[in-house]
This record gives sequence, structure tokens and C-alpha cells, in this order.
Amino acid sequence: MRVISADSSAALLDAKFTPLRIVASASVLVNPPYREPHSRLAKPIFEEAANGYEVIVHEAELCRDLLEKVKADVVHIDLSLGAVPLEEFSPIQLSNIKISGRAKQHLLTILPKLRKIAGEIRRKHGLEALAIGKESIPVRIAELTAGAEAILYACAKAVDEKETLLLGLPSKCQSMIAGSKVYLYSLMAAEHDVRGFAEDVNGILNKVNIVEMLNPVARGFRVLRIAPKA
Amino acid sequence: MRVISADSSAALLDAKFTPLRIVASASVLVNPPYREPHSRLAKPIFEEAANGYEVIVHEAELCRDLLEKVKADVVHIDLSLGAVPLEEFSPIQLSNIKISGRAKQHLLTILPKLRKIAGEIRRKHGLEALAIGKESIPVRIAELTAGAEAILYACAKAVDEKETLLLGLPSKCQSMIAGSKVYLYSLMAAEHDVRGFAEDVNGILNKVNIVEMLNPVARGFRVLRIAPKA
Amino acid sequence: MRVISADSSAALLDAKFTPLRIVASASVLVNPPYREPHSRLAKPIFEEAANGYEVIVHEAELCRDLLEKVKADVVHIDLSLGAVPLEEFSPIQLSNIKISGRAKQHLLTILPKLRKIAGEIRRKHGLEALAIGKESIPVRIAELTAGAEAILYACAKAVDEKETLLLGLPSKCQSMIAGSKVYLYSLMAAEHDVRGFAEDVNGILNKVNIVEMLNPVARGFRVLRIAPKA
Repeated sequence: MRVISADSSAALLDAKFTPLRIVASASVLVNPPYREPHSRLAKPIFEEAANGYEVIVHEAELCRDLLEKVKADVVHIDLSLGAVPLEEFSPIQLSNIKISGRAKQHLLTILPKLRKIAGEIRRKHGLEALAIGKESIPVRIAELTAGAEAILYACAKAVDEKETLLLGLPSKCQSMIAGSKVYLYSLMAAEHDVRGFAEDVNGILNKVNIVEMLNPVARGFRVLRIAPKA
Repeated sequence: MRVISADSSAALLDAKFTPLRIVASASVLVNPPYREPHSRLAKPIFEEAANGYEVIVHEAELCRDLLEKVKADVVHIDLSLGAVPLEEFSPIQLSNIKISGRAKQHLLTILPKLRKIAGEIRRKHGLEALAIGKESIPVRIAELTAGAEAILYACAKAVDEKETLLLGLPSKCQSMIAGSKVYLYSLMAAEHDVRGFAEDVNGILNKVNIVEMLNPVARGFRVLRIAPKA
Repeated sequence: MRVISADSSAALLDAKFTPLRIVASASVLVNPPYREPHSRLAKPIFEEAANGYEVIVHEAELCRDLLEKVKADVVHIDLSLGAVPLEEFSPIQLSNIKISGRAKQHLLTILPKLRKIAGEIRRKHGLEALAIGKESIPVRIAELTAGAEAILYACAKAVDEKETLLLGLPSKCQSMIAGSKVYLYSLMAAEHDVRGFAEDVNGILNKVNIVEMLNPVARGFRVLRIAPKA
């Protein structure tokens, strides 16, 4: 089963470790044994952290775009709604799901766009887009891939703006640089062999100093302090 | 404190990773330092995944059967009801416990049988059977032991039926073959030294090829693809 | 950001692994990268396990005392109330928070004392005391530090009273002795590099035998069996 999925992750933080902007989105193709991305598509977003729901629409678009390049059997969207097909998901079903009223309101706003993209994916590629969210390993691999790309985007921003940045990584993961690749390894239990990565084609990693620390006010999250080299 | 416990685990999956049948039950005796089984009793069950509650009765029977062979101080049943003694557990108490209505209905059905077995265990061995469930390390060791046995049962089935099978392992664990033993190691946080195992007395492991992968639609679960050798 | 925090942890257990008394409290100063204590202050408490809430007041006092010796930017109290400043926390706000009625009652009892200490800390040092609890890595480091000190206190008690003790460690951690230090390493996912420690200035570790086991009735908890050497 070949799975295409997408997620957005990593956030610029202020000095008190409060998230300001989500940095990157990525879609991935994940094949068995489902440990890392086979193909990837990423973009910087620097979206306000409060607009978390809007980015899901862009993630669905990134899935659709990746399907133009590679084949898959199913699409996993980062919405935890019991793995129902998005296209069949109606506002009535939403009322039966246990999420907060505010989350429901946000979902209602983006649902028409999501169903439209799900319809395009079905008509053009014959695939279902499932709202599977946190139960999906490909969604996790997309999250780690977006996070790895976010490190490169944040490094570029630090160099461009000659400024030190704090980058909050996705939940329970750790970065490792090897050659021209930056890997993001999951630190979740039973995910020790799950990772995402990004390729530093512009050599930006050579222009910064990176220090890892734990986020003191958010258990399970690590932070990179990225400073441009003098 | 010597603990006897039992659990059922591992499931045959279809091509979409949906559980079809629970494969094995096992009872174990666990002694300090509570890291692996000291004595074991297992059987293949291949029970429909939907009948999850029925298997608890058979698990209690396996505890009773193991008590014919080894001594213990207490019995742990895989029911998370606050570690109350099963024999004293009444339908009225059940109404005070926070579980879903459907789970309550299932429990009510099996409760008379469970209390009967608990009564036998108390009269014959003077031991209490506690409904402790997920708080118990011996229950976890029983789960890992049943999972290790399930690997052998599934291998035998694949060879007998000349068919490739997908076996879903218990939550957060990983198999390792060493000599004639198949171990199932916990991957849960703080359980790095907890494991179950089974003995391949029939040399069935030599007749199959096993590939491990992550379950793409169930975070934390691994899957073995078991194929008979040509 | 320099953080001062405090916690109490580790418990003497009876033969059935039921907690009897909480052993130690510790306050810590934690600096970036937030992996271990920079400065420490500890005391034995041997408080009844049922009085869990009373110890929070003493923890706040230990934070205040540590502030007499070292500088910090913020204080983290082990109360999970959404990181609100304790001094501003009113009984009315408490009614809006989702905790059990009994927990609320306990909190109401200690709130005046906590607010008094928070006021002293603000006036004297200009710092806020936040009720951040389980989201705080410094609170976790305080928990591990108190646990490491508790090992030494329990060893001294075992030697003094010529009695074997069972000491329940904090959740998901493991002790390691190196030279005259006893370390308590976190075993939580993504906390593999987080630890507390205590210094065995009296050489008490040479006078006991310590065996580690898992707590069979509390998943994720380890237990030390501490026996005085003959």
C-alpha cells in the first residue's frame, strides 16, 4: 500500500518559547516498510501559528501536487476524524464527532475546500483521501519531513536577516545532520526507526551555528537556536 | 510477590491492515524483577477480532491451568477495573465504573463466568484474581508472550496454507529471533527491559521469510509479513 | 531563560507496592539546554502519601530558599493550571478549571499559602511563580533530583533501622550510580538526555545493596529494594 500524506510543522518561537509562525508544509509518498519518505514536496509557509486549520487546505493541495509526479494507493490527510473519506464527510457527520465547538467551526470553514480537492484526487487518480490524522504513520513522516525542511528554511531566514532564531521542532523528535542532509528522527516510543529528511542543496547549513535544547515550557518538544556565523 | 497473569494478542490483518482474528492467548508466571515470564502456557485461538471480550474468560482459564503447575501469590486479569478482586465484583459496582455502555454490556455477559473461575482459584489455591488490566506489568508480559507465540502459530499457518500473511503485533513492541527462540521486546517508554518469548520447537521459523514493517494506519503498531519459503 | 522549580518524589512502598510515604523534596535551578539541574536544594520529608497537596507549599518554600542563593528569570510550580501566575490565581478562576472536586478542595486549602509565597518571590526578586506543572521540563528535572536525593535518604534509613526497604522511583526513570553520584535518568520518550542527581557525601551507598525491579502493579514505575549490608 503506497500512501501519500502531508503535514505542516516546526514553529518560530519568541524568547519565552511561545510559537509565532508555523514554518513549513510537506507532502510525502511513503512505501512499505513505512519508515521514511520515498518522494517529497515541500514549501515554506511562515503561517501565523493561530491559523492552524487553514494550512490543512494547503497540505491537501500538496498531496494533489505530489500525485502529479508519483503513484499511490491512498491519501492520508492530517485530520483525526476516524479515517473517514473526506469527500463523503458532511457537516452533519461533523456534529456527531467529539471535538470542541471551536474546532468544529474551523473545520466547517475549510470543509468545502477540502472536499473539492478530495473530489479532484478521486476523479483524476481514483484515490480516496482519508481524514486519518494522528493514527497515520505517513502523516508522522510528513510532519518530520516538514520539520526537516523547516530547519533549512529557518537557517536561510537567520542568514538573510542576520538574526538568531529559535525554531521549535515537532513533538518528540531530534535533528541530525549527515553530509548535505538534515534528518529529523522520531523520539516517540516504537518510532525509533521513523524519520524525515531534507536536502541542503544551497549549503545553508555551513552558514549557521545550531544549538539544540529542550523546550522548558513544553514537555516533549526540542528547540534549535540558529545563529548566522559571524 | 509471584504473579500469574494472562492476555491475548497479535492479529491477522487484511491487505488494508484491518484486524481479522486475534491469534494467541498465553498465561505467564512472573517473578521479581518482573522483566520476563518465568513459566508460560499458550494456545492458538484465531478468534474473531470483534469478540475481544469472550477471550478474557479463556485467559482466566489459562491462569487457572497454569496454577496447576506453578505456585503464585496473586492473579492479574486483563480487565482495567481498578485492581478490585473479581470474585467480589458485582453488577452494581460495574454501574459505578466509567466505561462505555457497550463495554459494560459485554462485561455483564462474561462476569458470571469470570467470577466462577475466580472462585475456583480462591478455593483451590487461596489466591485473589484482580481486575487490574493495563496497570499490571505481568499483564504486559503475558501480552508479549502471547504475541511471541502468535508469531509461531502464524508461521505454521502460512506454511500449511502456502499463503503470505500479515500479522499485527501487540502495541509498541518488536520481535527478535535468537536461536530457536522468538522474543518480543517492549518498545514502550521505560519498558526497554521487558519482554516475552516463545520456543520454536518445530523449527517453523526456518520455513518462512519474515519482513517487519510499521502499520501505516495504526501508530505504535508493527506488522510482520510472513511468507512461506519457496 | 533561567528557571527555578521544585517537586517531591519517590515513595516508600509496602510489600504489595502500595505507596506509604513520599521521601524527598528538591528545588532546582535549570539553565539552557535544560537537561539537568545547575543548582540544587533538597530535604527529606517522609510525608504520608495521602497528603500530596500539602507538599506543594513546601516545594514553593524550597524555590524561595534557592532564590536566596542563585538568580533566575521565572519560577515553575508543580501545579498543572495552564501556566497562570500563582499570585493572580483566585478561587473564582479555580472554579473554571477542569479538575476533580476533591483536587479543587485541596487546592483551595493551600492556595492562600502559595499566593503568599508567590508574593514574597515577586516583591523580593521580581519573578513570577507559574502554575505550569507537567508541561515544564524544569519540574521534571526537580522530580528526578528529588528522586535521586530520595535514594540516599532511603539508604540512610535502611542502614539506621537495619531494615530492607522498597523505594518506588518517580514515573519512567532509572537510577545509575557513578562515583559518588547517584543519577536518575528519565526514560520518557524524548527525555533520554534529561536527568537529576544527588551527591553521596556520606558514603552511604557503600553500606547497602540495591536491586532494581519493575513495579508489577504500576506500569512505568521502577522500584529499588534497598538492604543494609551484613
